[in-house]
Amino acid sequence: MIKLDRLPVMTGKSARKSWGPSLRAGTRAARTGRRLPGPGWQTRRMRITLLAGGVGGARFLRGLRMAAPDAEITVIGNTGDDIMLFGLHVCPDLDTVMYTLGGGISEEQGWGRADETYAVQSELTAYGAGPDWFRLGDRDFATHIARTSMLSAGLPLSVVTRQLCERWRPGVRLLPMTDDDVQTHVEIDDEAGRRTVHFQEWWVRLHAKVPALSFIASGAEQAAPAPGVLQAIADADFVVLPPSNPVVSIGVILAIPGIAEAVGTKTVVGVSPVIGGAPVRGMADACLAAIGVKTSAAAVAAHYGPGLLDGWLVDSSDASAVAAVEATELAGIAVRALPLLMTDVATTATIARAAIDLAAELAR
Amino acid sequence: MIKLDRLPVMTGKSARKSWGPSLRAGTRAARTGRRLPGPGWQTRRMRITLLAGGVGGARFLRGLRMAAPDAEITVIGNTGDDIMLFGLHVCPDLDTVMYTLGGGISEEQGWGRADETYAVQSELTAYGAGPDWFRLGDRDFATHIARTSMLSAGLPLSVVTRQLCERWRPGVRLLPMTDDDVQTHVEIDDEAGRRTVHFQEWWVRLHAKVPALSFIASGAEQAAPAPGVLQAIADADFVVLPPSNPVVSIGVILAIPGIAEAVGTKTVVGVSPVIGGAPVRGMADACLAAIGVKTSAAAVAAHYGPGLLDGWLVDSSDASAVAAVEATELAGIAVRALPLLMTDVATTATIARAAIDLAAELAR
Repeated sequence: MIKLDRLPVMTGKSARKSWGPSLRAGTRAARTGRRLPGPGWQTRRMRITLLAGGVGGARFLRGLRMAAPDAEITVIGNTGDDIMLFGLHVCPDLDTVMYTLGGGISEEQGWGRADETYAVQSELTAYGAGPDWFRLGDRDFATHIARTSMLSAGLPLSVVTRQLCERWRPGVRLLPMTDDDVQTHVEIDDEAGRRTVHFQEWWVRLHAKVPALSFIASGAEQAAPAPGVLQAIADADFVVLPPSNPVVSIGVILAIPGIAEAVGTKTVVGVSPVIGGAPVRGMADACLAAIGVKTSAAAVAAHYGPGLLDGWLVDSSDASAVAAVEATELAGIAVRALPLLMTDVATTATIARAAIDLAAELAR
Repeated sequence: MIKLDRLPVMTGKSARKSWGPSLRAGTRAARTGRRLPGPGWQTRRMRITLLAGGVGGARFLRGLRMAAPDAEITVIGNTGDDIMLFGLHVCPDLDTVMYTLGGGISEEQGWGRADETYAVQSELTAYGAGPDWFRLGDRDFATHIARTSMLSAGLPLSVVTRQLCERWRPGVRLLPMTDDDVQTHVEIDDEAGRRTVHFQEWWVRLHAKVPALSFIASGAEQAAPAPGVLQAIADADFVVLPPSNPVVSIGVILAIPGIAEAVGTKTVVGVSPVIGGAPVRGMADACLAAIGVKTSAAAVAAHYGPGLLDGWLVDSSDASAVAAVEATELAGIAVRALPLLMTDVATTATIARAAIDLAAELAR
């Protein structure tokens, strides 16, 4: 188990940023010590890799796809939220990305399927099958049935995810962070005593109202990045941290051994999930509080730190507050301010374009 | 695997029939050789045990419940038709009994749930998840999800079935014939060559139109009756074979080692599933043909044989045909004729009452 209060220390970050894939041992360039004059991003497709949670990441991706329609986008999705419900393997974050980009998302909720019905769950309730605090629609159930069936047949989650995406054609390559079992657990202390519960129980059943004492990525130490994950990071022109939860989404992905180190060697641009001292969506403040990080755009960037983060987009309303600490707390991180509310896809594309521009600028 | 062309030979059937539970070794009566003056069926609840398949058995049971509202009815259900679909454990016959007696059945179909919707399966089809020839409704899916979840947790099917019945309260005790994996397979020979397919593939996908060369109860030899099965037979005042398929429903149940022997010691009354040379429902003729049994009320009784069967109810329209062979082919089996079409519950109750009366008469 890995506690999520601090990110893995990034020491290997090279001072010199370059636009383009990492030079890896074994390539001709690495052997000869010279950089190949490889195709620039104007003559080949741009490669962008993101670490993403659920709703925030998925909505950002919709804008990014519009901003860079020709880019090869790889999404490394958080699976720490995954939960077995009714014997079925549910992947909330992967599904939110898949449904959102595939056009099947419930726009009102931000998660789950549009035009849902609830016959299956109401029948399960009639059978007394629990839990009753996680609501799954009939269409959504089909995804979990198909997934569980393939997993039971021995396919790893990365292959299963690719299969499910065959239908949704999200326009990005969606990879689970790992094929191994990693679960985000939350330590809480309420009238039922001090105990550890599954993230979903804290988030959905308890509405994150019981203070979290700590978060634990259970199983992370023994987990390996899913096939393709490290390669997608190495091959990326730059890495984006979208406005996903810094602790239980991006933090969990970074807890998988090898991922933070790989990301640390790349140009990394993040988009603040905090605007004006509050999370835009979800209950990221409850997560940040648990690890002693203030709910502010500056504090989240400082949490990621200059070892990981090169550029940081903050909302215009946070510009002055961030500027006040930029020289000290955010030393080494280039900050840009612009409106960050993802009110529609076009507005989100503007934010994504700013992230691309900042990455290109930092890599020069 | 056990071929279903012949029933297990019944040699232990006692000539003297008695109304009431078997005398089992270890009881005082067995030790002393005297019959206990146990309560007669007028002072205690009648105990009836049935071997049942799907629709025919379930509809008969609805009549039996009306005819004998105070009786303790145990149903030993066929699980040879069980099939894994989309990774879920589907028990068509058990569910048909449970839904029919619990008031949840689709009256039009005779199987599946009333007021069904099909969101889950249509989504699974969109994922390319097969098969597409077995249609499951959303409400029905919930049953299979709940069942599979409990089975995965290590509960045996008999316990899972009891749990599911907690909701449906069918008014009978429903036991699977076995907790072990037994599958009815069908040997066929068509343009795709000679091969063996799951019963459901032959029955549902091929509509039983490709001639069956043989039926095999795969796994039956190694299977044991589920807990309670042999006891329910031993404790029964009499056993009823309702108008279920004699080959792939009742034949499969009798293929489980120990069940035919136990039934053979009891007063057994059967209800012909064949009226006027045709099965009332389903495609029993295709099954009978495969094992060389004519589709007639007399031939089915002769197939069960006097070693198993004591009484046989046939439809009025078959009375003369059956009478013509009664002395020879059906020697030892008491035949009664009456209208056997189960047009409604009241009519079915009349048939059930005739079965009870015949059993009582035979036991005197």
